[in-house]
Amino acid sequence: MRVSIIGSGNVATHIAKALRNANVTLLNIWSYNLENAQMLANKVDAIAVTKLSQINTDDSDAVLISVKDDAIATVASQLVNYSGLIAHTSGAVTIDVLSNHKNYGVFYPLQTFSKHKELDFGNVPLCLEANDTSNLDSLKQLAKLISKSVYEVDSEQRKTLHLAAVFACNFPNYLYGVAQQLLAQNHLDFDIIKPLIIETANKIQTALPMEVQTGPAVRNDEQTLKKHEGMLQEHPEWLTIYKLLSEQIKKG
Amino acid sequence: MRVSIIGSGNVATHIAKALRNANVTLLNIWSYNLENAQMLANKVDAIAVTKLSQINTDDSDAVLISVKDDAIATVASQLVNYSGLIAHTSGAVTIDVLSNHKNYGVFYPLQTFSKHKELDFGNVPLCLEANDTSNLDSLKQLAKLISKSVYEVDSEQRKTLHLAAVFACNFPNYLYGVAQQLLAQNHLDFDIIKPLIIETANKIQTALPMEVQTGPAVRNDEQTLKKHEGMLQEHPEWLTIYKLLSEQIKKG
Repeated sequence: MRVSIIGSGNVATHIAKALRNANVTLLNIWSYNLENAQMLANKVDAIAVTKLSQINTDDSDAVLISVKDDAIATVASQLVNYSGLIAHTSGAVTIDVLSNHKNYGVFYPLQTFSKHKELDFGNVPLCLEANDTSNLDSLKQLAKLISKSVYEVDSEQRKTLHLAAVFACNFPNYLYGVAQQLLAQNHLDFDIIKPLIIETANKIQTALPMEVQTGPAVRNDEQTLKKHEGMLQEHPEWLTIYKLLSEQIKKG
Repeated sequence: MRVSIIGSGNVATHIAKALRNANVTLLNIWSYNLENAQMLANKVDAIAVTKLSQINTDDSDAVLISVKDDAIATVASQLVNYSGLIAHTSGAVTIDVLSNHKNYGVFYPLQTFSKHKELDFGNVPLCLEANDTSNLDSLKQLAKLISKSVYEVDSEQRKTLHLAAVFACNFPNYLYGVAQQLLAQNHLDFDIIKPLIIETANKIQTALPMEVQTGPAVRNDEQTLKKHEGMLQEHPEWLTIYKLLSEQIKKG
């Protein structure tokens, strides 16, 4: 398959590199910023373009749109004459944004990507949706080249997935930050708590989170809860979080 | 060194097995329940006892107390004639609970342990405190036999560590549970989000959490925040958590 990618951000970069590693031909990388387009294009042996009209639509079997959510509609409208398969990579945007096309779908990698952090794309869950079974098959074929975890997920389910990811990723990361600041304020190295963070994430790979809940709240250890609340007096916002989450955990 | 362990729960079990693997002689395992004491004793070639007076204090170089927090004082008071090194393994209890002894300290493993989940004890941070430098050295010697991560942490710091662990482990685990339930309610497999949970924990091994915060709140993506809040109308408690944590993340 020959693929062009619209975008040069974190998601575009990780997908492009994974496809290149799977010997998929990348025709064009588009970014309105030539330098960004060129940098990614160089990595994946593609041609950088800065105008959507420059994309080699004749030879592309698929075009992936990996731009900011609110730019997807605009990009798609400029490619409305492209009759090949077009798919966006967003978790939060429904498939309908592409419904002016003949062949369209969604190719959503459920992972948190950073530019400077390599990861094994083979473990990234790819959530696919398409306007018909033939296009779904094409996306599946492409997805299976780069990942062991390929799921069929409709737009409604993808919305839930995106919300669940906030609870599973964004909020825990914020709480890691609170822990880090508490330690720093008491001259303790953040490193000391990192194995605990890893093991907490590891545990739920083989158990339901509710089954492995630990800590003073689930034990109804009022003495420790009160002590902790006392220690948070100077951080009223963290205290509010502490009380709210502890209450929820107590309810089970 | 020859060590006796008072307790047969998760922490006692993991410490005892780690010591045995490091060729430390385990003399006695105490539990008021003989079956529990025997089960662990069998694993580590020790003698099970159910009375504290049966512990071979003459030959023990150290006794580790690994019982529930509010039982430590009682256990210690019954061993007040033991003049060797005695240490408890709790994160939440100060060293003073053992101050009626001559030689005492704390041997606190900062990790979440489950009975049925093996883990590499070599990566478990051991937080040590003692009443004098000679006892601290003895605890260090013991700790370094079983872990690469040995820290000196006083009682005040250990209180902070214990509080930070709630934010870094107990609360994230609760939020994994919310994600799991959201997925289940929409017929989505929890497996789909597990790689994201692992990668979120991996990321902060080499970066500060605040530097790698992602999601709609940190982007000030009001449209997505409103959409998510709408989806949580039927779960008012999760909605409260969503709003509170999103507000905090927005403040940075």
